[in-house]
Amino acid sequence: MGLNLAQKIIKAHLVSGEMIAGKEISIKIDQTLTQDSTGTMAYLQFEAMGIPRVKTKKSVAYIDHNTLQAGFENADDHKYIQTVAAKHGIYFSRPGNGICHQVHLERFGVPGMTLLGSDSHTPTGGGLGMLAIGAGGLDVAVAMGGGPYYLTMPKVCRVILKGRLNPWIAAKDIILEVLRLLTVKGGVGKIIEYAGEGVKTLTVPERATITNMGAELGATTSIFPSDEVTRAFLKAQGRESDWVELKPDDDAVYDEEIVIDLDKLEPLVALPHSPDNVVKISEVGKIKVDQVAIGSCTNSSYVDMMKVAMMLKGKTVHPDVSLVIAPGSKQVLTMLAQNGALADMVAAGARILESACGPCIGMGQAPASNAVSLRTFNRNFEGRSGTASAKVYLVSPEVAAASAITGVLTDPRELGEAPVVSMPEEFLVNDNMIVPPAEDGEKVEVVRGPNIKPFPLNSELPEKVCGKALIKVGDNITTDHIMPSNAKLLPFRSNIPYLAEFCLTPCDPDFPKRAKENGGGFIVGGSNYGQGSSREHAALAPLQLGVKGVIAKSFARIHMANLINSGILPMTFVDEADYDSIDCGDELVIEDARNRIKNGGELLLRNITKNKDIKVKVALSERQAEMILAGGLINYTRRQSNQ
Amino acid sequence: MGLNLAQKIIKAHLVSGEMIAGKEISIKIDQTLTQDSTGTMAYLQFEAMGIPRVKTKKSVAYIDHNTLQAGFENADDHKYIQTVAAKHGIYFSRPGNGICHQVHLERFGVPGMTLLGSDSHTPTGGGLGMLAIGAGGLDVAVAMGGGPYYLTMPKVCRVILKGRLNPWIAAKDIILEVLRLLTVKGGVGKIIEYAGEGVKTLTVPERATITNMGAELGATTSIFPSDEVTRAFLKAQGRESDWVELKPDDDAVYDEEIVIDLDKLEPLVALPHSPDNVVKISEVGKIKVDQVAIGSCTNSSYVDMMKVAMMLKGKTVHPDVSLVIAPGSKQVLTMLAQNGALADMVAAGARILESACGPCIGMGQAPASNAVSLRTFNRNFEGRSGTASAKVYLVSPEVAAASAITGVLTDPRELGEAPVVSMPEEFLVNDNMIVPPAEDGEKVEVVRGPNIKPFPLNSELPEKVCGKALIKVGDNITTDHIMPSNAKLLPFRSNIPYLAEFCLTPCDPDFPKRAKENGGGFIVGGSNYGQGSSREHAALAPLQLGVKGVIAKSFARIHMANLINSGILPMTFVDEADYDSIDCGDELVIEDARNRIKNGGELLLRNITKNKDIKVKVALSERQAEMILAGGLINYTRRQSNQ
Repeated sequence: MGLNLAQKIIKAHLVSGEMIAGKEISIKIDQTLTQDSTGTMAYLQFEAMGIPRVKTKKSVAYIDHNTLQAGFENADDHKYIQTVAAKHGIYFSRPGNGICHQVHLERFGVPGMTLLGSDSHTPTGGGLGMLAIGAGGLDVAVAMGGGPYYLTMPKVCRVILKGRLNPWIAAKDIILEVLRLLTVKGGVGKIIEYAGEGVKTLTVPERATITNMGAELGATTSIFPSDEVTRAFLKAQGRESDWVELKPDDDAVYDEEIVIDLDKLEPLVALPHSPDNVVKISEVGKIKVDQVAIGSCTNSSYVDMMKVAMMLKGKTVHPDVSLVIAPGSKQVLTMLAQNGALADMVAAGARILESACGPCIGMGQAPASNAVSLRTFNRNFEGRSGTASAKVYLVSPEVAAASAITGVLTDPRELGEAPVVSMPEEFLVNDNMIVPPAEDGEKVEVVRGPNIKPFPLNSELPEKVCGKALIKVGDNITTDHIMPSNAKLLPFRSNIPYLAEFCLTPCDPDFPKRAKENGGGFIVGGSNYGQGSSREHAALAPLQLGVKGVIAKSFARIHMANLINSGILPMTFVDEADYDSIDCGDELVIEDARNRIKNGGELLLRNITKNKDIKVKVALSERQAEMILAGGLINYTRRQSNQ
Repeated sequence: MGLNLAQKIIKAHLVSGEMIAGKEISIKIDQTLTQDSTGTMAYLQFEAMGIPRVKTKKSVAYIDHNTLQAGFENADDHKYIQTVAAKHGIYFSRPGNGICHQVHLERFGVPGMTLLGSDSHTPTGGGLGMLAIGAGGLDVAVAMGGGPYYLTMPKVCRVILKGRLNPWIAAKDIILEVLRLLTVKGGVGKIIEYAGEGVKTLTVPERATITNMGAELGATTSIFPSDEVTRAFLKAQGRESDWVELKPDDDAVYDEEIVIDLDKLEPLVALPHSPDNVVKISEVGKIKVDQVAIGSCTNSSYVDMMKVAMMLKGKTVHPDVSLVIAPGSKQVLTMLAQNGALADMVAAGARILESACGPCIGMGQAPASNAVSLRTFNRNFEGRSGTASAKVYLVSPEVAAASAITGVLTDPRELGEAPVVSMPEEFLVNDNMIVPPAEDGEKVEVVRGPNIKPFPLNSELPEKVCGKALIKVGDNITTDHIMPSNAKLLPFRSNIPYLAEFCLTPCDPDFPKRAKENGGGFIVGGSNYGQGSSREHAALAPLQLGVKGVIAKSFARIHMANLINSGILPMTFVDEADYDSIDCGDELVIEDARNRIKNGGELLLRNITKNKDIKVKVALSERQAEMILAGGLINYTRRQSNQ
């Protein structure tokens, strides 16, 4: 039985497990990328592993998120990342060099390689034929240290593209159509693999628009084959030698299949407030538009920008519209500045923003109250724009530019002849804003601003684990309860000691104080403990406060994994009724913990205060048990790496 | 006796008073400008005056301060300003069109006219031979309504420029030298008038750099003659017809005189944390630089930018430096984008920011902790950059660009041949981002976001003024006590009802509640009440809460003027010992208030609770008395305008 393209790359990188959908596998990671909002923590974690130099083929640290720099924290983080990268063998893309995914595509991506990135839109690399996956910072840190990446073997869904796009119809319309068909849950546990005759009609940046926004399907990743189009792109980037041909076996088998007829696509729009809320532009009508934003890792390539510039040339942005444009990279911006396209944009009244994520992640350009904002971005979640009452619509650059001129949502086909932009045979290559790592990392001093604090690190699980029940909470506690995230706390993502002062405070304002006074202890929870956002800070903050274990009726999956990564024991009651037999302040002890974990058995939790024994389970895979014994993923990886 | 240039323009605009230094005069205002951080309040105040259309020759509303747009408040303010401008005959410069002072110079400034702007750097217009003065929003609102601007007749200080600048020496070095000589207090009560053979060697934007930063001298304004250089500039802007020749009489008399020998100037720098802390670059040494910022209303003209671009061409910004550049206007940015200069900047690694004030006003690009930041801006006050520990140095664009490349503070003369850039014979004129006012303002609906609240308006002073003593405070209460200003409250400058909830809360958290419960009343203060920042919100918030008068031992000058503008009675104890005879909660009443104010006599304040009569003074000029009787400056102006 032949393999599809995703399976081929997985097979070539398989470290452990069976390639059966739903089973845990682990794969070797060739490249990593980080951005600055997740990167600081990832590098703090990497440092904690004690590995002098990354073991990947290439790791790159980008600065593209916190570029407004409203306070010292951002510039401090940039400096930390620059110096820690130099020390440990990581390339550093300076602020202004562009959005990580766009730059990675241009300068670093290699077909057939695996890429792990601490950003959910890492699948952009799938446009080049990479297996590119988004993950948490700690996973990326482990990959930099040479550890494999664990994931559930996905199903593979083939999307067959037939025909070719008509004028004015864009790659964005293809992924919007896929979202319409599959919905934001439709990709969960799957890789989306593109195939069919339509593939060769799409440039690499167009393919990357599609794989980028595949993240909105909930998919593990998306991937295109690597073909002559890929070769031409890499050649134009001066990297033809990175090219290899990649395609599925002729008799490849897929778990699912969708067919999209490119000829029949019309300009589409994702209505507020979900990327899968997709309809035809023609069905929405000419609603009045207040803001148009063009750019983001989805639609900021050279060709995207050139089309927009040609549409804007000689026109004026409608007086009621604020048009902001952020070209995706220094390469793109320089080319537009050289060939006059940028001048055409500015002359028409476009506001040019720095090459960065900007308004896509809510960093600036918040629309007015109740405003309609058309964006070429990938997400239109409620409030993400920075304005709770704004209505964000996701569209192609063509629709965006047309609407910026007319002031209403506009089907660009009304404008007559579509602009024709061909891919450059040669991109302007100037990597002077990418700083290579130091040859001798030992000499580099890592600069830590006052907001960057050392990362908390657990120690080996002792035989006897004891402490007080520090807090007792009810059912459905979210990670927002455990570690609140808001505008006040976001600048402190590199400062776990500070964040820990807010740990579980929505449940009990005194929890951090009590935890510290008692030298740590246990959390007692109800059902579905740790649901919601995947933030690892919801495990790191308790770790900082000395929490040794959580005893709950049940756990949310990702938070349980984060607890294990931090070496915190996630225990469930064998008899849920025992929840009632622990009160806040009770002295608890677990004897013989290491032995029982090794043997996969139950633990016996003794409530000394109540003089009662309570049976608890710790449901761990063999690998997870090792991790708990070692004191978390970092210690585990450090040990593996020293073996 | 002949007149100097400043006196000539004042004389031509004199409405009232004698032109004797130190005496109050009032002048007719030809043009006004506002920016968006002060503009919203100014237009709310203008609306409150009930005048349908501005009575100036030209009024322009710019958007250049709040362009990062971290929340809905900014875009709402922009929309409010755009619609209120259209309605009342004001030109609207859209966001992205540039910094008010740079754009006004390019497109609107007229030699010999008066310009009043709600921004302290309005004197930039002096580079064109305007009498351009910065003022509070209410003063600008009054001027838009046709009212004169009251000021103390200034002394005039002549600065004679001899010779011509050597290569690498800039207009910035001239104003830094003036600051070194006069200090930041040296211009108080004065107009700085430039003269001498060196004047004709300076372009209009160079002159504007000098008059702009004259604000740092504390001067009323600064002014250059209007000559053939001015004519050439206006001609290149397609506005030769706006030109008139302007020069002092041959036998003009000046109050003071300074001579600066341009040939002898060296590259200068203002050290942290004051613009007058000026030394030669050569005296500072090659200190390491972390950030370089080029732009602001001081140094963002076409020639400034071209010099920087030529210096950066083919180079790379030092790896340890973040270089940010914000061209001053759409005109400048478009020209740079057309001629390849912008491409040279980007290729070298410059981060291009939107044409706006940006980091100069602390809107973004906060440096790292303890960073050294070289800036071509006009102010280096401690903390203004957004980073309390940063050290900001003020320099010319030449020094800035040289240092960005080398990574250390650099005397550009070390770099060899200086770039030679001549003034364009024709600027690129495209006013498509300046929206003219509606022909029929009545049809325009003003859009008010939820954060824009109506402005509180007082009513005529009644014969009998009564109420409780709502609070009693000690000596040296600042406007920061009366109306706190911080990052939390700044977005609410258009929302007096919200701000009022924080009025005097640093002294007593219950004050706003008590004031509202009692339907207003009186404030009792000690000596020097209302010192510090000039913010008019420190009078508007008490007005919002119904405060009718303040009885104090003494007042700070500007706050007292603001109280009068708001129609709040500023009273001082005839016998300071009476301060002790009022307690918080006492019932107070003033009988026969109007009559006594009209007759300029003392008031009798009766403390009903204590059964005691207290003599208080209200020291008002005739005009101010009229204002108090009318219920504040707006009502007063409204009445004048209807006469």
